[in-house]
Amino acid sequence: MFGELLENVRRNVPLVHNITNYVTVNDVANIILAVGGSPIMADDEREVAEITSKSRALYLNLGTLNTRTIKSMLIAAEEANKNNIPVILDPVGAGFSKLRDEAIDQLLGQVKFSAIRGNMSEIKALLKKGSQAKGVDVQVSDQIGQDNLKSCVEFAKQAARALQCVIAISGPIDIVSDGEVAYCVYGGDKLMSRITGTGCQLTAMIATFIGANPRKVLLASVAAIAMIDICGEQGVRRMTDLDGNASLRNYIIDAVFNLTETELDKEARYETK
Amino acid sequence: MFGELLENVRRNVPLVHNITNYVTVNDVANIILAVGGSPIMADDEREVAEITSKSRALYLNLGTLNTRTIKSMLIAAEEANKNNIPVILDPVGAGFSKLRDEAIDQLLGQVKFSAIRGNMSEIKALLKKGSQAKGVDVQVSDQIGQDNLKSCVEFAKQAARALQCVIAISGPIDIVSDGEVAYCVYGGDKLMSRITGTGCQLTAMIATFIGANPRKVLLASVAAIAMIDICGEQGVRRMTDLDGNASLRNYIIDAVFNLTETELDKEARYETK
Amino acid sequence: MFGELLENVRRNVPLVHNITNYVTVNDVANIILAVGGSPIMADDEREVAEITSKSRALYLNLGTLNTRTIKSMLIAAEEANKNNIPVILDPVGAGFSKLRDEAIDQLLGQVKFSAIRGNMSEIKALLKKGSQAKGVDVQVSDQIGQDNLKSCVEFAKQAARALQCVIAISGPIDIVSDGEVAYCVYGGDKLMSRITGTGCQLTAMIATFIGANPRKVLLASVAAIAMIDICGEQGVRRMTDLDGNASLRNYIIDAVFNLTETELDKEARYETK
Repeated sequence: MFGELLENVRRNVPLVHNITNYVTVNDVANIILAVGGSPIMADDEREVAEITSKSRALYLNLGTLNTRTIKSMLIAAEEANKNNIPVILDPVGAGFSKLRDEAIDQLLGQVKFSAIRGNMSEIKALLKKGSQAKGVDVQVSDQIGQDNLKSCVEFAKQAARALQCVIAISGPIDIVSDGEVAYCVYGGDKLMSRITGTGCQLTAMIATFIGANPRKVLLASVAAIAMIDICGEQGVRRMTDLDGNASLRNYIIDAVFNLTETELDKEARYETK
Repeated sequence: MFGELLENVRRNVPLVHNITNYVTVNDVANIILAVGGSPIMADDEREVAEITSKSRALYLNLGTLNTRTIKSMLIAAEEANKNNIPVILDPVGAGFSKLRDEAIDQLLGQVKFSAIRGNMSEIKALLKKGSQAKGVDVQVSDQIGQDNLKSCVEFAKQAARALQCVIAISGPIDIVSDGEVAYCVYGGDKLMSRITGTGCQLTAMIATFIGANPRKVLLASVAAIAMIDICGEQGVRRMTDLDGNASLRNYIIDAVFNLTETELDKEARYETK
Repeated sequence: MFGELLENVRRNVPLVHNITNYVTVNDVANIILAVGGSPIMADDEREVAEITSKSRALYLNLGTLNTRTIKSMLIAAEEANKNNIPVILDPVGAGFSKLRDEAIDQLLGQVKFSAIRGNMSEIKALLKKGSQAKGVDVQVSDQIGQDNLKSCVEFAKQAARALQCVIAISGPIDIVSDGEVAYCVYGGDKLMSRITGTGCQLTAMIATFIGANPRKVLLASVAAIAMIDICGEQGVRRMTDLDGNASLRNYIIDAVFNLTETELDKEARYETK
């Protein structure tokens, strides 16, 4: 199932327009190339609409947002929505500053997203105020685990309904939901959090999968997460005693480059709830 | 012949001022250091002229251009021209947006370039309008190969005459011309296109070679291309089954770091047309 | 002694707010993670004060400064000073342009720094004018060596007193002083200068160590330098014939990731003067 979605990425080589932070942008570009897509980065307000209109997906990442790029994100997203080009959001640092929360308010108010991926505290921050809060009544901690999985799954479903798009929550267990179904994806390794930008890279992979499979937003998101989880484990297994987070960063992108459709199908570990 | 030019790079350690995109800027800096130069990145309009005036070459790359950096490029290039410091252009995404085409029009109108490197579609975009179009009547496809090499060579010569500088066109066969002679450079590997910024890095190497060999712009450009082609092949040969584009990125820069003058002379594969 | 300071880093995982250049920012983030801290990058003037107020250290790096980020640095630093959060400066390119010197004047005039790290020519540039120059009468060359170590040590002490903070001067021998004592740290490898941003990374490590040990600014700075020197040597020892500066970059960050507290204590080579 997921193998087919990956095959579509590699056959169609979707152009993904990224307005993203300058910290992890190189890794974002290389992982999009690794999975089989084609990245383009452009953030000037005078060209973003044109670039988006030629792309198969628009990826917005709030990592090092500023006044100039927030405006560009809104312009690009408006063009994307007009042309039914999927828009994917990584709300890095949601809840951590007023600027981020205001930008998120603007984005959620003006843009129709296909998918949003963050950790639990970021997704919770998205839901804290205004219309988004409506109907989300599950209280969950920031840590997803087997003991609180049921409430996290319910939270993800309610969040997806409130935000009206696929929600992917990263953690020891990843949860993805479109509001109806929820996928719990197992795998990955806690060492991945010692590399800057694994989250940014994952959301870029989600955007790439969705760009090649625009009618299967939920499954495309799950496929991307299953893939990074498998590749993260492969990367950690490849590490020698001398390797640390710098080599692991390379090994994970390498693994994404090499993972076959068959392996993705065979090794993905998930269940629906 | 090329070995001597590389020796000049390593003996003189030319300072190269880069106004380039934030996606591949780290690799650009590391490859300039690998080949033997010294990179400096500075893009504020209040300091670029001063930085350029102390440098041996100015490298302009349009990758993530914006209103602010376009202005800085024009200021830096004016200073460079005033002081006979070579200016090298990588017109990333030429033809892909109005902003890029307007920036290119401004740059071509106001700046005397020593060399411009791009792929065929980018170089064709440079020639599409105005005075640049004059005298370029060869029709070529975007793919350079043995079957259309003759017309591509003629195109490169005409482009060099029209743009009044050395033109380097990257492809399965690379073509470099000053309008009189054309060099066809063989080598490289198609896996190189799976790494973000190999083009940006190559143009940075051209700038570094020219910075150390300012009176041999054509040969310096050819030497840089021959070198990246050799190093790209060495990088691919070094790859194990587990390696992908992330490791290959490192292997190519490593190979540039290690390639000797003698090896460059011996392994460069080219012919003049 | 240093091992304990490293243990504090790894136990407390200090959040370090970085306003730094876009060339080496990814390596800065990964080395902060490698040593055991937690990096955050944010440079918009509307959020920097808020981000700084939640951090344990503020790291300012002038690498690709511009009008917008200089303002953000001043705002963030004011907030840091107000809350007794240590501020660490890397004056990249001090003396190389008027813009940098003006920015440095503003920063030195308005901000109380905990530590400043640069090479000898950058530290000398900081002391060239105005009130900073007072009382610094030692003449030293830009190269630190055994032959001029005594005068360099005296210079470092006077610089620390003039600038009223810990001064770390990088070179073949690194000198760190708070104005009273000076530590001479031995180790490292000259190949480290062939990687872009080793200086930026070192200052980030200093900021991380200080963030976790705010009452031991001098020793924390020395510990970070001893650690990068040890890890630089380990990285060079790990290099094969095929490796160059790209692999070395990864090996050094990997070594920082793996170095234990015991190894740091055992392998640090320094003397006090």
